Order: sequence, then structure tokens, then C-alpha cells
Amino acid sequence: MNELINLAWVGICTALVFFMQAGFALVEGGLARAKNSVNVIMKIYLGTCFIGVGFWLVGYGVAFGPSVGGLFGGAGYAPMELPATQAMSLLYQMMFATTAVTIVSGAVAERMRYGAYLFFAVLMSLLIYPVYAHWSWNADGWLKQLGFVDFAGDGAVHSIGAWCALAGVMVLGPRLGRFSKKGEVREIPGHNLPMVALGGFVLWLGWFGFNGGSISGLESANLGTVLLNTYLGACAGGIGALAFMKLTGRPVLMSASVNGSLCGLVAITGGAATLNPLTATLVGMIGGALCTWGAEKIRSWRIDDAVDAIAVHGIGGVWGLIATGLFYQGDMFNGQRVLVQALGAFIAFAWAFPMAYACFKLIDRFAGLRAPTLNEQRGLDYTEHHEIAYPEFQDSPAQLRMEARDA
Amino acid sequence: MNELINLAWVGICTALVFFMQAGFALVEGGLARAKNSVNVIMKIYLGTCFIGVGFWLVGYGVAFGPSVGGLFGGAGYAPMELPATQAMSLLYQMMFATTAVTIVSGAVAERMRYGAYLFFAVLMSLLIYPVYAHWSWNADGWLKQLGFVDFAGDGAVHSIGAWCALAGVMVLGPRLGRFSKKGEVREIPGHNLPMVALGGFVLWLGWFGFNGGSISGLESANLGTVLLNTYLGACAGGIGALAFMKLTGRPVLMSASVNGSLCGLVAITGGAATLNPLTATLVGMIGGALCTWGAEKIRSWRIDDAVDAIAVHGIGGVWGLIATGLFYQGDMFNGQRVLVQALGAFIAFAWAFPMAYACFKLIDRFAGLRAPTLNEQRGLDYTEHHEIAYPEFQDSPAQLRMEARDA
Amino acid sequence: MNELINLAWVGICTALVFFMQAGFALVEGGLARAKNSVNVIMKIYLGTCFIGVGFWLVGYGVAFGPSVGGLFGGAGYAPMELPATQAMSLLYQMMFATTAVTIVSGAVAERMRYGAYLFFAVLMSLLIYPVYAHWSWNADGWLKQLGFVDFAGDGAVHSIGAWCALAGVMVLGPRLGRFSKKGEVREIPGHNLPMVALGGFVLWLGWFGFNGGSISGLESANLGTVLLNTYLGACAGGIGALAFMKLTGRPVLMSASVNGSLCGLVAITGGAATLNPLTATLVGMIGGALCTWGAEKIRSWRIDDAVDAIAVHGIGGVWGLIATGLFYQGDMFNGQRVLVQALGAFIAFAWAFPMAYACFKLIDRFAGLRAPTLNEQRGLDYTEHHEIAYPEFQDSPAQLRMEARDA
Repeated sequence: MNELINLAWVGICTALVFFMQAGFALVEGGLARAKNSVNVIMKIYLGTCFIGVGFWLVGYGVAFGPSVGGLFGGAGYAPMELPATQAMSLLYQMMFATTAVTIVSGAVAERMRYGAYLFFAVLMSLLIYPVYAHWSWNADGWLKQLGFVDFAGDGAVHSIGAWCALAGVMVLGPRLGRFSKKGEVREIPGHNLPMVALGGFVLWLGWFGFNGGSISGLESANLGTVLLNTYLGACAGGIGALAFMKLTGRPVLMSASVNGSLCGLVAITGGAATLNPLTATLVGMIGGALCTWGAEKIRSWRIDDAVDAIAVHGIGGVWGLIATGLFYQGDMFNGQRVLVQALGAFIAFAWAFPMAYACFKLIDRFAGLRAPTLNEQRGLDYTEHHEIAYPEFQDSPAQLRMEARDA
Repeated sequence: MNELINLAWVGICTALVFFMQAGFALVEGGLARAKNSVNVIMKIYLGTCFIGVGFWLVGYGVAFGPSVGGLFGGAGYAPMELPATQAMSLLYQMMFATTAVTIVSGAVAERMRYGAYLFFAVLMSLLIYPVYAHWSWNADGWLKQLGFVDFAGDGAVHSIGAWCALAGVMVLGPRLGRFSKKGEVREIPGHNLPMVALGGFVLWLGWFGFNGGSISGLESANLGTVLLNTYLGACAGGIGALAFMKLTGRPVLMSASVNGSLCGLVAITGGAATLNPLTATLVGMIGGALCTWGAEKIRSWRIDDAVDAIAVHGIGGVWGLIATGLFYQGDMFNGQRVLVQALGAFIAFAWAFPMAYACFKLIDRFAGLRAPTLNEQRGLDYTEHHEIAYPEFQDSPAQLRMEARDA
Repeated sequence: MNELINLAWVGICTALVFFMQAGFALVEGGLARAKNSVNVIMKIYLGTCFIGVGFWLVGYGVAFGPSVGGLFGGAGYAPMELPATQAMSLLYQMMFATTAVTIVSGAVAERMRYGAYLFFAVLMSLLIYPVYAHWSWNADGWLKQLGFVDFAGDGAVHSIGAWCALAGVMVLGPRLGRFSKKGEVREIPGHNLPMVALGGFVLWLGWFGFNGGSISGLESANLGTVLLNTYLGACAGGIGALAFMKLTGRPVLMSASVNGSLCGLVAITGGAATLNPLTATLVGMIGGALCTWGAEKIRSWRIDDAVDAIAVHGIGGVWGLIATGLFYQGDMFNGQRVLVQALGAFIAFAWAFPMAYACFKLIDRFAGLRAPTLNEQRGLDYTEHHEIAYPEFQDSPAQLRMEARDA
């Protein structure tokens, strides 16, 4: 009986996590300029398609197949006949792999070639992501064996995604016109902020499934507390970002507020089952403030992340892993536990960043990673897809002026 | 076993009701002018954040804590360790408090200061809303004790929200240029109608959780009938609005059609469990027509509700409470029952309107409620958030002409 | 106990399938020109309202009432007191009827009168759709009796919808300016592609409920495999469309990619429970490629389907029915089975196309089907609803130029 309830529950959680792709598409499409918004959404849409088939073929086996020395899964590729529970689990995990990869798409938006991104997406979903997922989630994974706790993926999903994104933007370089010759940051405002806010709501909604479906079973976990912690983390993240902006005399931006709440959600993801409402609120609030501060810091290093994905998922992910150790309900401030969490966070970086960097460098050498300058000026929608987002509106005077600025 | 099923069911319903915030953001953002659309969405987004934390700290205890004389809850503030079912219930109720407050944001859109709104949102979610929720929903609440029936919140959520909104728009006054010197209404068209329709669909979706999660348990209530009634109410509301517009020779507006279906949903909320499909259809249809008629009536009194929230939630809420009494399955047209329902509806007004009026007046005196005239002309997005919704499009000729009209 | 789980599961699936209406509204609204986007969304919104009430009154009885000779249901009209499971089933089936009708709205967009569409929508939901649903799904339906397998509606929903759409566009004729005098196709680009992609994601999400809720019960069907097949079908559909575009040297369009994934979903709908992950992937991939090829083919015959609904749902539906026979798990390539499937697909056409053609012809004669030329030039939003989608933006130079082209 419980099996049926859990089956239905994971089914609906899978649908919710899938829908996060729409949330990413909205946030990233809205934060891009109109001339690149089709391109970034297409990366997510077709990335989802390729990752789905690839994860069924290979990724699931690597992550969740029987362990070979705690390092990777050695069987379970392209499974054909699966009991209902296992088929559902495969599908649910597929959503997580897709989420991890999609984090990259936003950071590298507006200048990476479409085909290059899709190729990287497949590599990441079949290799970089599932290996670390194996280490941290498989019962025999070596990090898991050390006592590493990562409830729903602050390491595997958010950190891995962020470090791959960092490698991507470093190999790619910044968008044209992003930094002046003196190194000053020039704002590139997103073209559609209501889209961004809607995306924020959709991602927040998806997190009900992201954390809610990560319980091992309704009968053995406190789903109510997991969801309550998750929700409070999001709220506190938004408040933390607002407080940081207000207290430091910055304007209260919508883009930063949405990212703050998302970082609160990321930060709560590692410990949603082992925090309490108060520590969850604290963790989210610190996450939201850290993210707003960190996004600026990253920009000041002339690293051009088009949607602040590295701040949201990287800072949020690392802080979430540490916080999971610090505030482990019933065993708080245990130095040993915190160290293991820090190790797991470090390993995510040490594994994903060089791997992704190498992948991007190889793609760059053999196929070309960055769109030609003229294409970037004209916009990737037109040059890569022969479609533009708003054909009836997209040569308004303001839009032409914007394009002229970058030309 | 049933406990687990209900836990999962309330979990998913919570997610759906949360998503109604996105629906409100879409409807209200779309019905605002572009220059204020970031602002109204930000009010909802950060309102959600503050109300979440505040309701956990205080609101839940006031509404659902052990009753002090039937008036308010005296314990259960900031609960830390909760059984799964209770943690879920807290989260579910948090969504209702958030919904009630967000109703206000639309009515007062385009001229209330951002900080002032957030301050009122906290006051309302901690005091005005939960006290009435206690009266009408807590087993020991005095209205509940009288036999008052309000299934999913026609009183607590929709009426309270509407009367607070009414107080807000009365203290604020109408938007610049809304009424001519002769008192004629000047249309201020919403800037993005597809957004409005999407918001309507999202709210309708959310209502599956709003009414569906309000059953006391899957084993004891007829969930199928509750959802069928809810759905028929929405359909009939749209038809009622259409019929009213057609029969009176008005154009069939999308904005009014969406509001009609929403009013049908509001009207069905009080009696979703105690009506049958036929009476549900009638209640919804009358609600849709009443709302369309009422929105015009309210405008004719020079009350400027930017999204007709008072008509949708106030008229719909009162009609829903009365209709719940009139068409109580198995006990129809019982005068006593109808009187109690009318009393509950009246009490909602008598409690919420003066309280909210006083709050708004105090905020106005000590902090300033309304944005300065120049800011209102320029748009609150730019003046309060330093961001505009569509930077590439927002100085098209038409847009400048619109702004010039109000200047 | 199982009854309660299934009740909750079908409840949430119903909500997801309902939300597909929002997905259709986004895809169709985004693929229409701005001047007609309110109109097409209004058709869907109020169509949903009318179909809801009508299906409760009549349609459900026709489709699922006790069979009269295998031809139609003879009782169960306007049911008033229903056990929970049956009330839920009625509501769930109502969503399918609504989906079938909405398929038509996209194909005929931008030139059919609003009232004419609503009238047809009611006829189709009360007669054309439920009769075929009876034949193919009712235990006593004559197709069902022959062994016809149509898991979630490749016949009843998608094929019927597509053939009614075909009849509609044939009676209506193409949009002004769609084909040059020499018969060349002139592109009419959709006005908002991010909306289209969001719609694609929403429809994909809805399919979790569309196929997931069509199982006869969680205890007797492999829900995991049904959802995994469904998801792989969507992914493979997107890949199939991409591959077709790439291999034939066409640009990789977002609109075609989204339609490809949707066609993958349609193709998998008939056999989601009787395929395995590999055959599901194949079926989806072929579907995506066929749809992209077919959409062009249909255009080349000077048939003007504004959103390629006939290709997505008609080609996808027929291919899905055939594929269900070809790849029936445990009984593959059984000629007899394939023949029955082909018969079912043919019957869908033979029933729906002439019926719909006659309905449209009658509406045309007695009430007028197509909007007057001047209205079509000006846009149906303004002429039929006195509202336009984006009043602050809709007379930008580009937009005026577009309108001038058609004038």
C-alpha cells in the first residue's frame, strides 16, 4: 500500500521538477536580451530532450547502478523492463540531471553556440553529473560512506551545475560590451522582468517536488517539515536579499530579489530534512544575502554570468552543504560533520570544474564554442535559428538603440 | 495509511495554492501598465516572503492555536518540532493567509508605495486575517460555534481580502487620470492581456488545491464532487460574465471574462462540499454576472480598484457565503442557516474594513502610503526599483504617448 | 484504501490536464499575430467554460453511459449525486473533451468568428467527440470490442481534434496573405516565441496527467513505465524534429522543435502502457520528424493551419495508433492487431471529418463563420473584443508595417 502512495507521490514530484525547466527558461529568457531569448530557451528545451534520452541510456546506470569501488555504477544502462517504482525513480533522477545541466545554460547565455551547448549538455549529463551523484547518493558511493549528507542535491545538482557554469564562462569570456576597457561593469538589463518573476514562482513551485520527492518514503520521513523548511528557506532568501540591498543602500531590484529567494531554496536543499524551521529560516536568509553580495563580487572579477547562476547555485550550494553540517538537528555544530560536508563541497568543485573546463576547451578547439562577433551583435536568435522572439516589436526605436550600442 | 495519503494530498494541494501567487502576479501585472508591472509583481513576490515567515512566527498560532474565549489562538507561535501532518497543515494554511493578503495588492496597484504595502501585508497576515480565520474555522471559534459554514474561505480569505482592499483604495484615492473632472471613468487598459489570461488559468489550476485540500480527509469527504463543483463554478462564472456582457450590449472583454470565471470560483469556495453540480453551476453563473455588473458599479462610485479585486473577491465572497446557506445540500432554503451565513459575511466586513482602514491611515500618517505624483507619472518600477519591465521596448511611441496623457 | 490513492491521483492528474488549456493558449496565442492573440486565447478560455458545463450535461453520458448497441451512451446525463470516484472520473474525462476541442482553435485562428467557434465547440464536445470516445473507450463500444487499443486518446482526442480542425480550415480558407497568387507560402511569424516555448513546457507537464491518469489504477498498471515512456516520447520527438531539420538543411526553428516534442507526446499517447522505453523513443522520434515534414506538406497544399495542429495531432495521432499495434509489448508486429488499429484510425477520420465539415458549413450558411475582411486586417482582438493584447506597444513601427502588409 505504502508503495502505491509513494509511487503516486514521486510521480507528481517528477512532474513538478520537470516543470522547473520552464522556470529556468523563463528566468534565463527574461534576463537575456530579446535578441537572444529564443536561443537560450531553445538550449533548455532541446537540452532537456537530449539529456532525457541520454540519461536513460547511460546516466542512470553511472549514477545509480551497482557501484564499482564506490566510483561509478557498472550496470543498469538503457533498462528495458523495470518495476513501477524503479521506472519512476529513473524518471525522477532524470529530472535532477536535467536541472544540473540547465544551470549552465543561463550563465553562458547570449554568446555560446547552440550546437556546442547541446554537445556539452550531453557530456555533462552522462559523465560529470552522474559520477558525482554516485559518490554522494549511491549507498556505496565513497562520499556517502564518509557520512556526507546531501538531501536533495546541493552538491550533485547545484554545485556541480555552478562549477560547470563557471568553467563555461571562463572559457567563453564575457559578452561583448559587458565590461568597459577600464574594467567597469556595464549593466545589460534583461528584456522581460515579468517573465523573470514568473520563472521565480515556477522554480519555487518545482522545489516542492525537488525536496518533497527526495524523501525516502512518506512513512519514514517528515514530509511536512521538509516542505515547511523548504518554503521558509525561499521566503527567508528573498528577505535576506532585500535586507542586504536595503542595508547597503542599493536599489531593491526584482532580479536580485528573485535570485535571493532561489538561493534560499538552494541553500535549504541539502538540509531540508535535518534542519528545523528556525535554522531553515536562518540558512535561507544568509543564503539570500550571500548570493546578492556574491553576484556583484563575481562580476567585479570580470566573470560574466548572464543570470548570476554561479552565485545562486554555487554560493547557495556550498553554503547549503556547510549549513547542513552546522545545523544538523540533534547534532549541531559537530566539527567532524562539518568537515565532511566541506570535503563534499570541495570535491564537487575539484571534480566538476576541471572536467568541464577541459570539455569546453576541447569543444572550442574542435568545433568552436563562441558565436562569431557579428552573430553576437545581431543576436543568436536570428543567426542560429532564423527566428526572432517578437517579430512585430523587435525593431522598435529602443531596441535598435540597444543593438547599436553593442555594435 | 489514510494519514499518509492525506499528507501527500495536502502536500500537492499546498503547492497548487502557492502557485496561485504566480497567477495573481500575472493577472495584476498584466492589468497594470507596463511602467508599474515590476512594482506590483514585486509586492506579491516579497509579500509572499514576509507573510511566510510571519505566519509561521505568529499567524498560525493566532488562527489555529487553542482558543482563548473563541476569539483568538493563545499558543502555537513559532512551532519548532511538528508531526508531519501538523507541519503540513501549517504550510497549507500559510498559503491561504498569503492569498488573502495578495488580493489587496492588485486593488491598490500603480500608486501605493512598496514599503507601505509590505508593512500592511505583515499586519494583515498576523492580525486581521488570522483572527477572523480563528472565528470561522477554529473548532472553538465563535462563528463556527454558531454553525457558520465556510468550506475553503469565502469569508476568511476572499471577503477579508476584499474589504482590506476596499479600505486601501479609499485611503489611497484613485490613480492619476482615472476619473475626469466631471467624474467620468477613463479606461486604463492593462498592458499585457495574454498575461492576464495565463494568470486566470493559473488561478483556476490553483483552486484545485484551494478547495481540494480543504476537505477534512479523503476518506470522509467526497473529493470528486468538491472538485467537480469547483470546476463547474469556474465555467459557469465565465458564462455568466459573458451572458451579462452580451445581454446588455457590452463588448465581450477578456479581462471581464477572466474575472467572471474567477468570481465563479470565489462564489463556489464556501459551499464546494455542500452544493451539488446544478446548484454549483447556478452559484457560479450568478457570481460571474454579479461581478461584471459590480465592477462597473464600484467604478461609478469613483472607487478605483485597478484589477476589480473588490468585485471578484468581495461580491463573490459574500454571494458565496449566502449561497452556501441557501443551497445547503439536504437542507435548502433554511432561513436560520442563511441568517448565520449573512452574519458571518457581515462580521468579515465589520472586522476587516475598519481595522484595515485604521492601519492604512496610520501608515499614511507616519510613513506615507502613496507614491509622490511625479513617481506615479514616471511609473513605480523606475522610481522604486530602478528597473523597468521591458527596457528594450518601453519607450515605443505608443508607450510615451500613454505616459504623456497622464503627465 | 487503493480507492483513496487512486482518487487523489486522478484528482491531481485532472488538474494537470486542465492546465494544458493554458499550454494551448500560450502556444496558439504566441503563434498568432499580436492583433489576434486575445481572440484565440478567449476562444480557448470561454470554450473551456462552455465545454465544461456541456460535458456534464450531455457529453459524459454519451461517451460513458451504458451503451446503446455499442454506439452511444443512453443514460447518465447531468448526473447530480455521484460517488467520489465517479465524480472524479467525470471531471477527468471533461478535461479530455476540452483538449480535443481546443486542438481546433489553433488551426482556425486569426480568421474564424468568435461566436461561430464557440458554437462549434459545443457541438463537437457534445456529439462528435463523445460518440467516438464511446466507440473506442466504453467497455461495450464497438471499436473497443474489436480489440482496438487507445490508451489515452490518440484516436478520441488527438485524431478527432485534428480532423475537425482540418474540416474547419477547409471551410474557412486560408488567412489573408497566407499564399501568394502563385501559390507560394508566405510566412506569418508568431508574435511571441517565448510564449510558445512556455506553452510547450506546460503541455508537456500536462501530459504527465494526460497519460498518468489514464491508467486503470495504480495497483494494476505500471505507472512508472507509463510516465517514462511518455517522457521519452517527448524528448525523442524534439530530437526527431531537430534531426529532420538539420539533415535536410533547414534552420532549426523553435516553433518546429516545440511542435516536434508535442508530436512525440501525441504519438506515445496510444501506447504509453504497452510500449517499452526503446520503442517509445523510436515512436516519438519518428513522430517528431513526421510532424515537421508533414506540416510543410500540408502548407504546400494551400491548407492554412495557423499552428500546425493538424500535423501535430493528426499525423501524430494516426502514427501513434499504428505504432501502438506495431510495437505492442509481448505481441509485436501482429498484422491483425495493426489492422484493427488502422481501422480505428480510419474510423476517426470517417466519423469526425464529414461531421465537422457539415457543422462548419451549416454555421457558415446560417450565422457566418469567417470574420469580415476588414476585421481580419485590423485584427480580431479589436473588432470582436474591443481590447488589444498590448495597448502600450501595439502600434510600434514594426507592428504597423506588418499590418500594412496584409491590408
